[in-house]
Formats: sequence, C-alpha cells, structure tokens
Amino acid sequence: MPKIVDHESRRIEVAEAVWTVVQRDGINAASVRAVAAECGWTYGMIAHYFKNRDDLLLFAYRLALTRELERAPTAKEQPDPVERLVGLLVRALPIDKDASLDLRIWLGFMGRVADDPSLAKAVLGEHSHYHSAVLDHVHECFEAARVSTPLPAETLTRQITVYVDGLGIAATLDPDTYSADTLESTLRMFLQAMGFDCAT
Amino acid sequence: MPKIVDHESRRIEVAEAVWTVVQRDGINAASVRAVAAECGWTYGMIAHYFKNRDDLLLFAYRLALTRELERAPTAKEQPDPVERLVGLLVRALPIDKDASLDLRIWLGFMGRVADDPSLAKAVLGEHSHYHSAVLDHVHECFEAARVSTPLPAETLTRQITVYVDGLGIAATLDPDTYSADTLESTLRMFLQAMGFDCAT
Repeated sequence: MPKIVDHESRRIEVAEAVWTVVQRDGINAASVRAVAAECGWTYGMIAHYFKNRDDLLLFAYRLALTRELERAPTAKEQPDPVERLVGLLVRALPIDKDASLDLRIWLGFMGRVADDPSLAKAVLGEHSHYHSAVLDHVHECFEAARVSTPLPAETLTRQITVYVDGLGIAATLDPDTYSADTLESTLRMFLQAMGFDCAT
Repeated sequence: MPKIVDHESRRIEVAEAVWTVVQRDGINAASVRAVAAECGWTYGMIAHYFKNRDDLLLFAYRLALTRELERAPTAKEQPDPVERLVGLLVRALPIDKDASLDLRIWLGFMGRVADDPSLAKAVLGEHSHYHSAVLDHVHECFEAARVSTPLPAETLTRQITVYVDGLGIAATLDPDTYSADTLESTLRMFLQAMGFDCAT
C-alpha cells in the first residue's frame, strides 16, 4: 500500500473515533486525549497526523459531511430534481443519528467562530463541497423548470443553505417543535414558498 | 430603594460587565472570574447573584436581546408594518457592534446546546419574547394586507426566525459575503420570496 494511502486511512481511523466520542459523550468531550483513548493510539501518534484538536475535528466534520452527501439520492434513484434536492438537504438535519453527527460537530465550532475568524474560515472551507452540491441540484431544478423565482440560482442556493443552517439550530434548541418527523415538512414548506414545485 | 430593585440593578451591572468582556475579549473569555475583575466585584459576590456562568450569560443575553427589541422602530417612527418587521429582524443580525452582541453570546451557547438539552431549553426560553415580537409584527403585516402567502402567521413567523438564525451564522462564518451592508438586502430578498410586499 503506498504511503500516502496509508496516511489517509490512518487519519480516517482517528476521525471515526471522533465520531464515536461525539455521539457517545458530546462534542465538548472530544479532546485529543479522549479520541486517543477511543482508538487506542497515543497522544503523540495523533499529533503526528493532526496539528491540534481543531484540525482533528475539521477532518472528522469533512468526513461526516462527505458521507451524508454520498447518502443523498442519485438521479437514478430519484429522477425528480426537486425531490433529489430535498433528499440532499435533509441529510444536513438531525433526521437520524448519522445525519445529526456533522451538525453536532459544526455546532461545536459555532461556540468559537465569533471569537476566531481563522476557524470561521476553515469551517466555511469545509462547507464549500456542500454548497456546490446544493447549487448543482438547484441548477437541475431550473433546467427541469421545477422552480419559479426571480432569484438567480446562486442567490437561491445561498438562501436555502442559510435556511437549512437555521433549521439545524432550531432542531437542536427546540426538538419538541422540530422533531425528526417535522423537519422535512418544514423544509418543504420553505422550498415551496421559495418557488419550488414541491409537495408538502 | 426597595430591596428587589436593588438586587435587579446589581444584576444588570454585572451583565453589562459581561457585555464589555465579550466585546473586548470574546465569548469564551467571559468567565465568572473575568466578569468579576471587569466590574470590580469578588467571585463570591457574583455567586450571590448568579448560580453559575450559564446563569450569568443567559441574563446578559436576555438583557442584550431586550435592548435590541427596544431599538426596533415603533409604529409611530415607522408606519409601514413590513418596514417595522425588517427593522426588528436586522437587530438580531451583526449590523453594528451593539446588535452583534446577543448573536455572539448566543453562538457561545450553540457550542454546547447539542450536548446539554437543559441549556437548549433555557436559551429557547430567553428567545420567547423575541418570537412573540416577530409574531406581532407578522400579524400587523397580515392586517395591513402587506403579505400574501398560504402560510398562517405562526408558521410564517417560525420560517422567518429560522432563517434569521441561519443568516446570523452565515454572517459570522462568511463576513465577506454577508457584510453588515448586504445582510439587510439578503433578508429583504428572503421576505419578498416569502410573500411580503417588501422593497429590496
């Protein structure tokens, strides 16, 4: 196995230990030491692969986000572009244990981004793949004439991702109102109001 | 001065020291010790008025939120209900130093709410006055026939507050795109899409 692949697979192993710690003990418990204990590595071994706790959490966040993007329905699985968009967006919401994971890590960063612009930039960078995926889906809705709005695709995409971030927060603060079951219908209501031909 | 007023005015004095520390050093620097140093109190004196750091921050948050609500335009100052609604909502966004304050405290809580449902409930409770104020403004828009939507006022209000929370996050993560100047126009674009008769 070439060395670079080995390096990456080891980083993934550590990131998966981050996921386990976050899901079991919460984001604030996910220290380098706790993650080391979880995967049976020494502190020094983790320090060899990650600069610091933020670097470790950012990698675990990227990996969780990528996994959720991959779980969104493909065009073959879901021919309707509006339904594909819904399928993609709900993966960023706490609709199940796995989908909740990147939101939990992301919320952990939110506690510090206002104080730390470089961390804000790093989190934003990790988000860019997600933004591109949403934009692609929005373009497909335009091409299929399944959305009617005076807003251009890029602006509409920004409005959607702003809303979805807010909805993740709402689900965390008020899980009684925004339960897993109601998140999708709340999102659909928003998309319909924004001009998508979207069942609610 | 009756004792209860005295008690409250002392709590306000401490909360204002929280604001100073948050604005100068960031939310994570706002420990009970740092706040005590700022207002020249002992740790024990603060402990007499607040149970713990969260209790202190929640009070400072409520006070900052109340101040921003009071700064929103009144019906006398702004006869158009849609413009009043915009005026209220922008006070929850980082359009200036004062308006940024409650967002910064709120973001600090976000770092822990996923791990701590009782804190989530407390933050949500502090938010209820704000929610009521937005709902009142939305009702006034309906009464003046300045909004056209199939959504009932309560649902529309929830969609708006979810969006505004997301927009505050976007402004924090991506201040280049969501500068103070563009926040209001981005919000207006959203309100127009939601059916408000709103200039952009």
